[in-house]
Amino acid sequence: MSSPGSAFVRATALARTLLAFCALVAAGTPGAQADPLPAWHDGAVKARIVAFVRAVTDPASRDFVRPADRIAVFDNDGTLWSDQPIYVQLQFAVDRVKALAPQHPAWRTTQPFAAALAGDLEGLAASGEKGVVELLMATHAGMTSEQFADTVREWLATARHPKLGRPYTDLVFQPMLELLAYLRASGFRTWIVSGGGIEFLRVFAEESYGIPPEQVIGSSIRTRYEVRDGQPAIVRLPEVDFVDDRAGKPVGIHKFVGRRPIAAFGNSDGDFEMLEWVSSGSGARLALLVHHDDAEREFAYDRKSAFGRLDRGLDEAAKRGWVLASMKNDWRTVFAPAKGPR
Amino acid sequence: MSSPGSAFVRATALARTLLAFCALVAAGTPGAQADPLPAWHDGAVKARIVAFVRAVTDPASRDFVRPADRIAVFDNDGTLWSDQPIYVQLQFAVDRVKALAPQHPAWRTTQPFAAALAGDLEGLAASGEKGVVELLMATHAGMTSEQFADTVREWLATARHPKLGRPYTDLVFQPMLELLAYLRASGFRTWIVSGGGIEFLRVFAEESYGIPPEQVIGSSIRTRYEVRDGQPAIVRLPEVDFVDDRAGKPVGIHKFVGRRPIAAFGNSDGDFEMLEWVSSGSGARLALLVHHDDAEREFAYDRKSAFGRLDRGLDEAAKRGWVLASMKNDWRTVFAPAKGPR
Repeated sequence: MSSPGSAFVRATALARTLLAFCALVAAGTPGAQADPLPAWHDGAVKARIVAFVRAVTDPASRDFVRPADRIAVFDNDGTLWSDQPIYVQLQFAVDRVKALAPQHPAWRTTQPFAAALAGDLEGLAASGEKGVVELLMATHAGMTSEQFADTVREWLATARHPKLGRPYTDLVFQPMLELLAYLRASGFRTWIVSGGGIEFLRVFAEESYGIPPEQVIGSSIRTRYEVRDGQPAIVRLPEVDFVDDRAGKPVGIHKFVGRRPIAAFGNSDGDFEMLEWVSSGSGARLALLVHHDDAEREFAYDRKSAFGRLDRGLDEAAKRGWVLASMKNDWRTVFAPAKGPR
Repeated sequence: MSSPGSAFVRATALARTLLAFCALVAAGTPGAQADPLPAWHDGAVKARIVAFVRAVTDPASRDFVRPADRIAVFDNDGTLWSDQPIYVQLQFAVDRVKALAPQHPAWRTTQPFAAALAGDLEGLAASGEKGVVELLMATHAGMTSEQFADTVREWLATARHPKLGRPYTDLVFQPMLELLAYLRASGFRTWIVSGGGIEFLRVFAEESYGIPPEQVIGSSIRTRYEVRDGQPAIVRLPEVDFVDDRAGKPVGIHKFVGRRPIAAFGNSDGDFEMLEWVSSGSGARLALLVHHDDAEREFAYDRKSAFGRLDRGLDEAAKRGWVLASMKNDWRTVFAPAKGPR
């Protein structure tokens, strides 16, 4: 072609070359000089991470991966932020039950609502998955997606962690924030793959992790497109659509990303299949489990925890070549510096 | 902070600034000088497109939109490539029935298979949605996602359009390719939102349109994660998971993108709700329908077509402020230059 359009096409091609060059300069030089992971102690775990990133980004390496295929997936609860004493979203549901209780007198005498109102976590756990789903449907459905997002935003702005006394969005792990930034600066696209609700996560993922809504995968309820008083809206229905946990995680990744990531990060057996799927691909792979063994700075739990149980992963990590990161020994810092009220 | 890490952070921030600068130089200068849409005749339609892009990308404009929110969604069948005489994927299903028939003798005497084997499109249409779903399940399920993608790839490499005699992946619309490139060069992320199968589309979307798998939304069947002989795989099940058509399109966009796009492009009433949802947002919006009125260069059809029917859209486009693009009068070229066999 020799139309003016082809001049435009050539110009944008040139631009892409320029961009690639800038990216090389940017990601290459400082990466080689400064420590991209200061909150990680120097040691075997940090070395494994850096070696992997260098292997897939060095054009001369036999493990080089083109940028389009540099996809890293991160679990959220217990991996990017705390999941103790209960999942943050479950605490949100409990607080919503308390806020909505006046309109639902029957809740005072029916489970799982009575347990939620009494703040009785054992009772809540005793209601099992059925109870938790009931709690979620009563608090997460029946409104438009915009109304739901506003409710989550307001709650996150005021809620405080029961033990640590800080906003939940402040309780994100500094070493993982550095890992996200390091991977993105190395040409990766970073995704969240969480058992939590996709519309709950999307409210804070961009501000807390720099991850845009379209790179958040999570569990979902069905929605319906409706035109209300001439205004189109997405309405949330009390029906489970997809459970993004365990074997659901590879399915969710396949559905949303459409190709197999080369790096996966988790903390519990809910992430087992995700790490298995990612690490069984060909070429260099990185699969890492955060082990919560730091009762002093955060929490210590694994095989017997009600939330974020890590049992099979502990047994098989070594033989599968997965990295086990000790919060206690591998992390110099645990939490990101306080951002203060939003 | 004054850790070595912050040097890295500063460096990557500097890099981002550099990148932004390169992007400005690249998207700005040639965009202003060369015609980004040479395959579009100069006229009201082209002017509307260019005015919209300038309004949302000019920082001085009151309609300026930050790059993160510059999302454009495109229907595929009839919008980016031909959907006549039948949807390409339906032709794929018919050809698969022929290929698999020897293992299914009963198909010779049962509908919709007999009609497919006879190449009887009326008979196929007569079998209705139920018949089409039956046809899709018999040809699209039961294998792993990788096996399915290989089958689609092989078919696309050899199949030819019955009337135009070219590979289907050559029958993409040059004006729409230019529009995709122009929007991306202007900081947009371009998505496909199709009633077609997501795993079918992802096989060729990157090469044909420059759209990566994670920006393809489509109809889907359920899948299951399985470990077969120690090898994990995504297995395709004969159950409909999601129908990404009509009111399903805004739902699909909300699920995958997580925010409302500011531009939408379609060609049929299957795109009506998508255009309605996108154009009803606040700020500058662009909604465009491609009108197939060019029997000479492609096909002429609208209100009565079995595939890609455009009826309500024709009635309401003007009053809703949607752009109606005439293939005959607004497009200088229809098809992209032949790429030849792959």
